[in-house]
Amino acid sequence: MNKQEGERVVDYFIVKDRETSVAANGSEYLSLTLSNKSGSLRAKLWDVTEKQKEWLLKRAIIKVDGLITFFREQRQLNIQRVRLVTEEDEIDINELVNQAFIPREELWQELRMFIDEIDSETLREIIKTLLRKKEIREKLTTIPAAKMYHHAYYAGLLEHIVTLCHVTAQVLPVYPHLNKDVIIASCILHDIGKTKALSDPVIPDYTTSGELIGHVVLSIEMILEGAIEAGISTDHHEMVALKHCILSNYRQNYQTSGVGSKTAEAIFFQHINQLDNELNAFFMIGNEACEEWTFSPMFKRKMYTYRK
Amino acid sequence: MNKQEGERVVDYFIVKDRETSVAANGSEYLSLTLSNKSGSLRAKLWDVTEKQKEWLLKRAIIKVDGLITFFREQRQLNIQRVRLVTEEDEIDINELVNQAFIPREELWQELRMFIDEIDSETLREIIKTLLRKKEIREKLTTIPAAKMYHHAYYAGLLEHIVTLCHVTAQVLPVYPHLNKDVIIASCILHDIGKTKALSDPVIPDYTTSGELIGHVVLSIEMILEGAIEAGISTDHHEMVALKHCILSNYRQNYQTSGVGSKTAEAIFFQHINQLDNELNAFFMIGNEACEEWTFSPMFKRKMYTYRK
Amino acid sequence: MNKQEGERVVDYFIVKDRETSVAANGSEYLSLTLSNKSGSLRAKLWDVTEKQKEWLLKRAIIKVDGLITFFREQRQLNIQRVRLVTEEDEIDINELVNQAFIPREELWQELRMFIDEIDSETLREIIKTLLRKKEIREKLTTIPAAKMYHHAYYAGLLEHIVTLCHVTAQVLPVYPHLNKDVIIASCILHDIGKTKALSDPVIPDYTTSGELIGHVVLSIEMILEGAIEAGISTDHHEMVALKHCILSNYRQNYQTSGVGSKTAEAIFFQHINQLDNELNAFFMIGNEACEEWTFSPMFKRKMYTYRK
Amino acid sequence: MNKQEGERVVDYFIVKDRETSVAANGSEYLSLTLSNKSGSLRAKLWDVTEKQKEWLLKRAIIKVDGLITFFREQRQLNIQRVRLVTEEDEIDINELVNQAFIPREELWQELRMFIDEIDSETLREIIKTLLRKKEIREKLTTIPAAKMYHHAYYAGLLEHIVTLCHVTAQVLPVYPHLNKDVIIASCILHDIGKTKALSDPVIPDYTTSGELIGHVVLSIEMILEGAIEAGISTDHHEMVALKHCILSNYRQNYQTSGVGSKTAEAIFFQHINQLDNELNAFFMIGNEACEEWTFSPMFKRKMYTYRK
Amino acid sequence: MNKQEGERVVDYFIVKDRETSVAANGSEYLSLTLSNKSGSLRAKLWDVTEKQKEWLLKRAIIKVDGLITFFREQRQLNIQRVRLVTEEDEIDINELVNQAFIPREELWQELRMFIDEIDSETLREIIKTLLRKKEIREKLTTIPAAKMYHHAYYAGLLEHIVTLCHVTAQVLPVYPHLNKDVIIASCILHDIGKTKALSDPVIPDYTTSGELIGHVVLSIEMILEGAIEAGISTDHHEMVALKHCILSNYRQNYQTSGVGSKTAEAIFFQHINQLDNELNAFFMIGNEACEEWTFSPMFKRKMYTYRK
Amino acid sequence: MNKQEGERVVDYFIVKDRETSVAANGSEYLSLTLSNKSGSLRAKLWDVTEKQKEWLLKRAIIKVDGLITFFREQRQLNIQRVRLVTEEDEIDINELVNQAFIPREELWQELRMFIDEIDSETLREIIKTLLRKKEIREKLTTIPAAKMYHHAYYAGLLEHIVTLCHVTAQVLPVYPHLNKDVIIASCILHDIGKTKALSDPVIPDYTTSGELIGHVVLSIEMILEGAIEAGISTDHHEMVALKHCILSNYRQNYQTSGVGSKTAEAIFFQHINQLDNELNAFFMIGNEACEEWTFSPMFKRKMYTYRK
Repeated sequence: MNKQEGERVVDYFIVKDRETSVAANGSEYLSLTLSNKSGSLRAKLWDVTEKQKEWLLKRAIIKVDGLITFFREQRQLNIQRVRLVTEEDEIDINELVNQAFIPREELWQELRMFIDEIDSETLREIIKTLLRKKEIREKLTTIPAAKMYHHAYYAGLLEHIVTLCHVTAQVLPVYPHLNKDVIIASCILHDIGKTKALSDPVIPDYTTSGELIGHVVLSIEMILEGAIEAGISTDHHEMVALKHCILSNYRQNYQTSGVGSKTAEAIFFQHINQLDNELNAFFMIGNEACEEWTFSPMFKRKMYTYRK
Repeated sequence: MNKQEGERVVDYFIVKDRETSVAANGSEYLSLTLSNKSGSLRAKLWDVTEKQKEWLLKRAIIKVDGLITFFREQRQLNIQRVRLVTEEDEIDINELVNQAFIPREELWQELRMFIDEIDSETLREIIKTLLRKKEIREKLTTIPAAKMYHHAYYAGLLEHIVTLCHVTAQVLPVYPHLNKDVIIASCILHDIGKTKALSDPVIPDYTTSGELIGHVVLSIEMILEGAIEAGISTDHHEMVALKHCILSNYRQNYQTSGVGSKTAEAIFFQHINQLDNELNAFFMIGNEACEEWTFSPMFKRKMYTYRK
Repeated sequence: MNKQEGERVVDYFIVKDRETSVAANGSEYLSLTLSNKSGSLRAKLWDVTEKQKEWLLKRAIIKVDGLITFFREQRQLNIQRVRLVTEEDEIDINELVNQAFIPREELWQELRMFIDEIDSETLREIIKTLLRKKEIREKLTTIPAAKMYHHAYYAGLLEHIVTLCHVTAQVLPVYPHLNKDVIIASCILHDIGKTKALSDPVIPDYTTSGELIGHVVLSIEMILEGAIEAGISTDHHEMVALKHCILSNYRQNYQTSGVGSKTAEAIFFQHINQLDNELNAFFMIGNEACEEWTFSPMFKRKMYTYRK
Repeated sequence: MNKQEGERVVDYFIVKDRETSVAANGSEYLSLTLSNKSGSLRAKLWDVTEKQKEWLLKRAIIKVDGLITFFREQRQLNIQRVRLVTEEDEIDINELVNQAFIPREELWQELRMFIDEIDSETLREIIKTLLRKKEIREKLTTIPAAKMYHHAYYAGLLEHIVTLCHVTAQVLPVYPHLNKDVIIASCILHDIGKTKALSDPVIPDYTTSGELIGHVVLSIEMILEGAIEAGISTDHHEMVALKHCILSNYRQNYQTSGVGSKTAEAIFFQHINQLDNELNAFFMIGNEACEEWTFSPMFKRKMYTYRK
Repeated sequence: MNKQEGERVVDYFIVKDRETSVAANGSEYLSLTLSNKSGSLRAKLWDVTEKQKEWLLKRAIIKVDGLITFFREQRQLNIQRVRLVTEEDEIDINELVNQAFIPREELWQELRMFIDEIDSETLREIIKTLLRKKEIREKLTTIPAAKMYHHAYYAGLLEHIVTLCHVTAQVLPVYPHLNKDVIIASCILHDIGKTKALSDPVIPDYTTSGELIGHVVLSIEMILEGAIEAGISTDHHEMVALKHCILSNYRQNYQTSGVGSKTAEAIFFQHINQLDNELNAFFMIGNEACEEWTFSPMFKRKMYTYRK
Repeated sequence: MNKQEGERVVDYFIVKDRETSVAANGSEYLSLTLSNKSGSLRAKLWDVTEKQKEWLLKRAIIKVDGLITFFREQRQLNIQRVRLVTEEDEIDINELVNQAFIPREELWQELRMFIDEIDSETLREIIKTLLRKKEIREKLTTIPAAKMYHHAYYAGLLEHIVTLCHVTAQVLPVYPHLNKDVIIASCILHDIGKTKALSDPVIPDYTTSGELIGHVVLSIEMILEGAIEAGISTDHHEMVALKHCILSNYRQNYQTSGVGSKTAEAIFFQHINQLDNELNAFFMIGNEACEEWTFSPMFKRKMYTYRK
């Protein structure tokens, strides 16, 4: 969203958030968050009618005509005309969703290749058992990696996983002592609990078990269920190594999970995971930025978003 | 261990730790940690012979004759005579082990009563399924609750569990809105992962999965396996509530696990668990203390161990 | 306050906060915080007249007619009619004040019983000397335990004290070594400094000595003054034990006061005090909540406020 | 700025910040930050015309007529009439700028005296070499010491430097072992990097090298360049002592620079620097305050701004 | 203590600490800490006889002949001959005690002058009331300011107080807005609780109330008792200002007491107190050091103790 | 050093540390740290003669005959015979020094290749200017990267630099937006200050400027001096980008330097630098370990050093 103040916007959007308020003059208005492929935008619809309140709901797909203003240094769209899309608009919801940079099908092919290159039967089997389930596979390949900040878009988790696999494949020749299979399996399964912790790929929210159990332990639970189904012992040394990578991954940065990394594979995985999260977050900030310096709530400092 | 400097000790012990060193005069000696019902004691055997080194091993049960000295403000036994116990000594290993204050059988009866008073079929069934397994039941009722500091004795975990159940039963009338079943189930199962994380009830050490997975997540794994066996859904709302109590229990104090407490039951369980751990640790310090003030590595300060 | 968006409210309130602003169209309006037994509510009075500004002051008792709207996810009352209460309304200020769940008189009777059960003459006497003073007794039995978050209502401190006494009475049989009198005296006197630190039971604010000295040290000062009056030595071992419980109570959580807990009584008191504060805070959040998850600034996370 | 609610303000200001927004009724307005000798003031110009938007820019010098209102506990000026200053107004920009309490020329004379009293030729020469450069001297004697909180006004850095020199001169007789020259040189040069890190004395902002290198290391770089120019070895023991004072100054409080203080001079300089920063910040808060207690974002607590 | 390895020491000492151990060859030895005017020294007496153990006690005054060795980078005296002092030695205990750099009588005269220059009758009276008591005056003028690290010698607290008064007198002209009386009274009384918290001027240890109440709150208690005796209201605004300085003094560094500094006087006092503590600690390290760099447990880093 | 208890060692060593002590029986002994290619070893020489003390100094090269014992879980060599090496031993010091895994000459060739592949003339020139100086080049290619924990051996820094270059070259294709030249220059120059901060490649210690300025700022100083010599502006945007990578590198982990990473290149460099440090530290621990679990003071936990 790189619009200047005063620019006119005529486009299709999906409604991500919606709130009714009463203005100073007593009339009602709507505060909306709109979203499409180019990002998110806050919008206001003044003097909303009762009718409009009925159909302008969260998740509605709409066509909007308005002007960009600035309020507290944030872009805001002042809506002048708005209607629901009709069949004639020939709009596909997928075209409105902010997506991973690489097509999802391509990412999925790359992921399958990385799985096939795993030598350990145990680790390959646990991954295949889990991805064989349609509801897991569909969610893993569509949800974002996080609600905000990094890979926060359709299929963001899949893109994150495939990037981690690529980084691993590239760096491992420099550190030949490391167990490649354990690391690749960690790249693929470390966030599988998010398929239970996040509610929806397009407008994700935390589920009750996401809040009460946390996605790290949900990942461990799903891996355990998969292992039981596949007849793999949960105490198998490769399974323990895999789970250790996932559990130790969150210690140093977010201090939310069990154990610090105690193996070379866990040290490696932890750093490349963080590297990819932060680089992706930086690119997302840069994409939205229109100033030389942009404050980031994730990094808690201003980042240098200058474009040569 | 309340012995004064210079006092003579003639008693039976189990060898908990053993290390060979060479003294300044070139002769070898053994540094030992001895233990029996009255607690632990460091000891030195000077001018150890090759023979003695052969049979004086970790876990040996011995009879010792020596004098108490003080070294760096710690009691130390200067061994003058030592031999392995023989059948004539008529020593039962259970008599040497530092134990819970209440007999283990009594604790076990009390625990069974608390289980029977659980109204929720789901929670009662998950507990029974797990305790029905002999290797779990035997370990849960014999291991200490921790390697050091609190309930660090034979059947210490069982005593901790039963005490928590008593506290819950007593306090719940003051907070009638709380779900008793969830809390009692948390008291009983919150440390069940320690049956896998600790190696031995008498001389416990962390196992590989104890180090790499951590006892909190091991508890969650065991509960999940039990649930699958008992045909209980892992997403059942009472199971989620139980797992949330266990996971949130470790956040505020040790910052090692996933999620902060977000339910009244988790808030309650977290505080009584910590209360019992700290009070027990304080009593253990007081038991061993011979001064008015005793430094505690767990509390990181001197504690007031004055006896009126 | 469980009102839905668009619902009409016709009720009596006390004005807790009041601020004048100028709206975009140049007309003035009032931002108010209104409060009655069912909780607090933000409100707006648009196009306020000079007359209204004269009588619509902080602490005024008013009758209001308005509609509930939502602004930034918070309920807000859009006032349409407002007037001061008159005698005909037959409104008693006590009926407007958000109060402890149990009647204040009942709490006071229970407190007296707990005082009578104290065996130590020293501790019973210091409590009686302080509560004999009318200005202390009246304030202790009417002020909230805190300005926000927990027991933040009329007589909230008294309710907190009595609950702590009940918890102590219930749990002590499980830990028979503890000195009951020291703990009960700590329950009753630990927040007595708040009678000087908080200005008013209905609309409390910090006093200058509350800000500059802090309520913990104010409690110690008042106990010392009471001891001098009652002829009790400030170095009496029970007085030291009592003061230690009060001082150590604040260390681990808020790191604001002198010393960590070094006695079993201080460990015990610290945990049950925190338990009651957090459980009460949780119930206050649940009372006001209308969603499944509610963010709490005190816990710094979303809490599970789902009602079955 | 000590104006009461409802008071009329007719005065000259410089525009420090400016933002366009659209009000609820669809008309545009400007949010401004105005500043003159008596401090800063937020202002609103409702129903702004296209014309006004053209000339009412950041850094404009304007004459304003308006009324003081309060919005979210902050003073705000409701502008009723506004125009650019003309030659007839006979306004000098220096009269509008919030300045150091002592005239800049006087401060400069005092600084020169302190330089002349330095006995070490090395340290005197490095200071003179740097201050001989017009662009450094002019910036050092005009910029604030910080963007916000302390000495945040025209020539604030110069005032801070001279105050530090005075404090040093006064206290050193109490600690006669300290090296006066090293401390005075640290007082003068410790913030010289801010001449590169801050963009402008009147409306300062961080430069790119201010953000990417930080003013501490910029100070070190400038001292090094000066030393090379003056033919002084960068490893000269007095240069190392000076740089150590500057580098260690930031450790304990802001944890942003290299090394803790390891010399008596660094310990001394660190504490008086912090003392002057905090006292100046406190006086700035007191100057603007109109209540007995004023919250300070720098101190993160309410400060006692009562005036007898 | 600047002795080199291998140097012979023949001198008088006081025994500060004493411990019996058994050596590898079975014979007993004593580990001692000896102290005299030039500092502290660890010592060993090998093959101690039963007789020697009887008279070589803590607090004994002895004459020693031995050789300096080094053990784990620490000087250690290998005692070859030792005996109790006799009358013929004509040793005065005061000659053995490590003392403040300025004679105690001189410090006392200076302190009295500072008291006389206090204009506020309230503050002068509270100081005089407390110092009029012989047991307080004698202890205040003999104890160290701390057990270790800074001013840890006979009359160290008195020296610390007088230095703080001097620093205040020197710096206040630079900050004329500050209330001198409140700061001088804080300098004099801020550590008065240490007269109750420390047991003895020569071999100080924490008392039970020192451990359980802490010296900060003990200071507040003593000031309150003095105020009651002198007929001064504890709520008198100068008393509150004084107590605030004392209470806030410990917040930022040690996080042990109630409130952050909220007045200019408290900000000032906090910084000069810390400055004097750290400079004195640094000089004490330098005094004992024999290397260019010396690790300091207080600063948690190596300090630069190079002597030109 | 993988020797078992009781094993005999006959080998050449360099003396890294040496300390004299007196044993319980009054005789003197030496505590030594010996080092050769296979690592470090603590050793004791009992009953040392005056002669031996004269020639057995720090940095001496010796031939030793002794037995491995264990003291406090650490290997210790009990020396039975020792002499200085003579010419006949035909020992080259390089054969005794624990070295990088790859020969130094090979590493140097690889480094030159990476330099040649830098496209930016500015960055290539600053590197060449610095490495053209013999004393910098020789030190950079021989010192360890740290005194302890990671790359703590001869040419360890060079190995670290070359590994970082390899990792960068491998991963950059995954993140094509990053500026390769800035990152490679950071890999090569980020620790160049260590050539001034560390005293010696074989037995390194911190220099005075290493302690007082710190190696991060020393790196910046050296780069600045190089830039002045090469006629490059210190404000050149690539120089600022390079310095930012170096300065931000230390923020998150060690909190010792100026600024958090604010560019994609700094984020990238920070993570791969930490990754290589931790992996190398882990391999060093594993190399020395003889147990399944080994405590690491750097990681502050037990690491899994199990060998399959």
